[in-house]
Amino acid sequence: MSLRGVIPPLVTPFRADGALDLAAFEANVEALAAHDLAGFLVLGSNGEAAGLEEEEKRALVAAARRRAPGRFLLVGTGMESTRATVALTRRVAELGADAVLVLTPHYYKARMTADALRLHFETVADASPVPVYLYSVPAFTGLPWPPGLAPALAAHPRIAGMKESSGDVGLLGRIVSSVPKHFEVACGNALVFYPALCVGASGGVLAVANCVPRAAVALYRAFVAGDHARARRLQEALLPLAAAVATNHGVAGLKLAMGFAGLRGGEVRAPLQPAPPSALDELRPLLEKAERAV
Amino acid sequence: MSLRGVIPPLVTPFRADGALDLAAFEANVEALAAHDLAGFLVLGSNGEAAGLEEEEKRALVAAARRRAPGRFLLVGTGMESTRATVALTRRVAELGADAVLVLTPHYYKARMTADALRLHFETVADASPVPVYLYSVPAFTGLPWPPGLAPALAAHPRIAGMKESSGDVGLLGRIVSSVPKHFEVACGNALVFYPALCVGASGGVLAVANCVPRAAVALYRAFVAGDHARARRLQEALLPLAAAVATNHGVAGLKLAMGFAGLRGGEVRAPLQPAPPSALDELRPLLEKAERAV
Amino acid sequence: MSLRGVIPPLVTPFRADGALDLAAFEANVEALAAHDLAGFLVLGSNGEAAGLEEEEKRALVAAARRRAPGRFLLVGTGMESTRATVALTRRVAELGADAVLVLTPHYYKARMTADALRLHFETVADASPVPVYLYSVPAFTGLPWPPGLAPALAAHPRIAGMKESSGDVGLLGRIVSSVPKHFEVACGNALVFYPALCVGASGGVLAVANCVPRAAVALYRAFVAGDHARARRLQEALLPLAAAVATNHGVAGLKLAMGFAGLRGGEVRAPLQPAPPSALDELRPLLEKAERAV
Amino acid sequence: MSLRGVIPPLVTPFRADGALDLAAFEANVEALAAHDLAGFLVLGSNGEAAGLEEEEKRALVAAARRRAPGRFLLVGTGMESTRATVALTRRVAELGADAVLVLTPHYYKARMTADALRLHFETVADASPVPVYLYSVPAFTGLPWPPGLAPALAAHPRIAGMKESSGDVGLLGRIVSSVPKHFEVACGNALVFYPALCVGASGGVLAVANCVPRAAVALYRAFVAGDHARARRLQEALLPLAAAVATNHGVAGLKLAMGFAGLRGGEVRAPLQPAPPSALDELRPLLEKAERAV
Repeated sequence: MSLRGVIPPLVTPFRADGALDLAAFEANVEALAAHDLAGFLVLGSNGEAAGLEEEEKRALVAAARRRAPGRFLLVGTGMESTRATVALTRRVAELGADAVLVLTPHYYKARMTADALRLHFETVADASPVPVYLYSVPAFTGLPWPPGLAPALAAHPRIAGMKESSGDVGLLGRIVSSVPKHFEVACGNALVFYPALCVGASGGVLAVANCVPRAAVALYRAFVAGDHARARRLQEALLPLAAAVATNHGVAGLKLAMGFAGLRGGEVRAPLQPAPPSALDELRPLLEKAERAV
Repeated sequence: MSLRGVIPPLVTPFRADGALDLAAFEANVEALAAHDLAGFLVLGSNGEAAGLEEEEKRALVAAARRRAPGRFLLVGTGMESTRATVALTRRVAELGADAVLVLTPHYYKARMTADALRLHFETVADASPVPVYLYSVPAFTGLPWPPGLAPALAAHPRIAGMKESSGDVGLLGRIVSSVPKHFEVACGNALVFYPALCVGASGGVLAVANCVPRAAVALYRAFVAGDHARARRLQEALLPLAAAVATNHGVAGLKLAMGFAGLRGGEVRAPLQPAPPSALDELRPLLEKAERAV
Repeated sequence: MSLRGVIPPLVTPFRADGALDLAAFEANVEALAAHDLAGFLVLGSNGEAAGLEEEEKRALVAAARRRAPGRFLLVGTGMESTRATVALTRRVAELGADAVLVLTPHYYKARMTADALRLHFETVADASPVPVYLYSVPAFTGLPWPPGLAPALAAHPRIAGMKESSGDVGLLGRIVSSVPKHFEVACGNALVFYPALCVGASGGVLAVANCVPRAAVALYRAFVAGDHARARRLQEALLPLAAAVATNHGVAGLKLAMGFAGLRGGEVRAPLQPAPPSALDELRPLLEKAERAV
Repeated sequence: MSLRGVIPPLVTPFRADGALDLAAFEANVEALAAHDLAGFLVLGSNGEAAGLEEEEKRALVAAARRRAPGRFLLVGTGMESTRATVALTRRVAELGADAVLVLTPHYYKARMTADALRLHFETVADASPVPVYLYSVPAFTGLPWPPGLAPALAAHPRIAGMKESSGDVGLLGRIVSSVPKHFEVACGNALVFYPALCVGASGGVLAVANCVPRAAVALYRAFVAGDHARARRLQEALLPLAAAVATNHGVAGLKLAMGFAGLRGGEVRAPLQPAPPSALDELRPLLEKAERAV
């Protein structure tokens, strides 16, 4: 029950009319449960949490809990206000979340000082029935992670770690070396999963684990086994796919790629747009390259 | 019923326990209604819309409608998903909003291409019972406004204008000269209200209009009367206050300043933090400077 | 002898083999001298100063002095080191420069604090035989102008003003209202020339003044005469040309446009590349639009 | 004769009066020559090349060649113009440089497209008598490295590799996996030296190698020997020193730290300012921590 290993941030499949496709979601959970994953993240950035209604969020958490009994269930609950974050945290804990992942609030960027963020996370952790993981993803929030914030929060008994998705391995390494051992720092950026493990990441919350879970898990296992040559080779095999998903096509690309892998990505929700038809020909060989490397 | 003139983005007062203070909000609306304002904006960035619950939003809109009958009531309804934006737009129209202000979705920044934004705004406008104004505020969204988007949307019969809050007067001028006359471009940044009017802004949606409404209105009237010397003098008098509110202290500073002006700013909602005690001594002379210039 | 009025930042024409084309430069000076310009800037950003050798710089300054006797000759002398800036400042003063324009050093961005910049400018001004103008152009330097720096330097008897090229009219207005009257703040961005004048700019150092000097001067005169309607109309007519030059094609586009206007832009120096052939068809109507508006 | 191993970017000591202190420079070269370094970089960013005169550059190259016979001598020759870069490249080759390091030109940022940069580097390589290494350091240039540029240039017979100083390990890994094996990619950022090696960096050009050469070399050797645990421990020991030098104090901090290590950093050249007195107490324990880890 931790961020040690590989965790896919589950996508939220939508139907063509924009409605939640819960059946597709559950099918994905069951299919992925066959892999040696450390758990599942629901309501993350790749889960399009920013565009979900509250009742949809509840349905997704309940479904994940139902379809993956006994697996570590991490749920994104970060909202712009502290009180809304607390409320959602409590709700998903009741629905069976094992831990919550709390995104930095970011709308009022200039006001989100290290102190304001610290108070936010502490208040949420004080109120949370389950362990809290911090979540920084500057590509979406526009907010850099303040040096010194992780060690300040690591002392809280309910703050268990963080997901660092900037891709800045130097920052991740500095965070790891500034916190006690029990505080887990997961890498949230597949472009640097292997080097992040090298500097102490506990595991990875990786979009590509939705479509090539075997390759992502193989990389992690190779690292744990001390087989750096194999880990590096797997990282190189994952790079083009990770870049295509993260940089070129985003969630729509990830959902498309899942289709190739036999899962049900479904549609994205507007204003997100479908990946262009050309993405089909672009993604298929990248998936095959990643799979072949295992 | 338009963005011609000065409109205050109403703040949302909270009580010390974090709950909505609707009485304070209504008192502010009534006090401000005594001024020659072109209307009111509810649920804008300075209204802390990002941290409000849906039922709080409804209560605020209904209260504003009740306390300012006959005045132009503009309501912020931009959400991250198109469908949530449509739903909120319809709801506030039922509650009496005269028009809605739709923020650019921005969480998935790299995916918010000009095309994706155009489709978003068009879908909202197609579904809206009331006129739609576009809203760009890069300081909060991290998203620059794509050149060419305003003229592409100006043809829609229900898209009436936009609020441009970047402070980039060159951009505002280029938008004005690229759209038909009926499309109103309001300036959302008090640091450049006067020069924005000079290049064709229709009016201003200005945080400082909450605390020094007379000065903001006087600037607008001077400009309309062709008295550039007076307009420039009033702009200079507003500069330090606008800078202190926008740059130094944000919404918390604005709320504090409103207290000096006899209004009820109330508390901010966490994770926003109160302005430091030193802000008291800093803001008072700036308010007086702005008032004296009228 | 000041920044009151319109000043073209003279381009540096090169021959196809990359050598300086001094004859073309001199022809341009003579042609432009027929216009009601407040002076000339040599060795500015549009003069490709960053790519010139010291002897070329001397030749250009001497030639400009020779061909424009009695006109205000402003010369860019900012280098990365203070001592090199001092040395070049002294040399161009000997060659007849009436004043120097000193760019913010910027390579060691994080170290260029307000204090470091203040000491730099003061040392240069202490050593300069001629008045010193400060120069900020973040699009090239990546360095924002620190609030408070202009008023701190305005007290120096040899610091006469600054050229503010960010296009941020709010910043320019704040600088103007923070310095004594004698300190001139010129606008270095044609996209906002008219609104900058509205908030107190003394004049403009404008790339487009190389190719449409009549329109630029007409705008300035209209403003001085209080004819805001005409000034705004001229600004709108200049906008597309200024955007094409500043944003789309840079110095290469400016040089191409000069050709249409009967001047000799010449080639750019590598690594700058020529404007694409399509720029020909794009720029011609923009020039005509600007000319027609006079 | 390559970027395999550790290379210190030599600092340029100045005397209190701002003049070059060549004796101190030579003493440093001799002292550092006792270590197992792969060579020396002269005229890099940490060598304050941006603020050096041409004759000073020649003196430094000649001195380094004299004091380190037989060692790989890499010399920074990137200037803003292609022709100046070519000229300096030829000159330093005559003075004994084994290879040159060519910084991306960056003043005209928006114009420095991948094509413009490619032509620049190709022209320099065509004219260079010695191997050419590309150099990207966005913290100073404000210019990101275009994807696809390294593989496009790797085919040139005289382009031997690059120094990637952004600290973006994902980018470095992608470059490594896109170029042929003989193309060396050195890490120019000590915060990520170990993880960069993990993804295929050939070595490191590291500021801290000036003051703790033993620790930097030990890290490299541990990595080459497959001792990841020791390499990671050394990386952690270097982190706070690297951060203090790169982020907090820059070249002035590095020079101060060299003093503790028995070398002669000397003064920085204005507009760079000396490190504050407090840096003394801050840096000493960080140096000791790095040394102790060896």
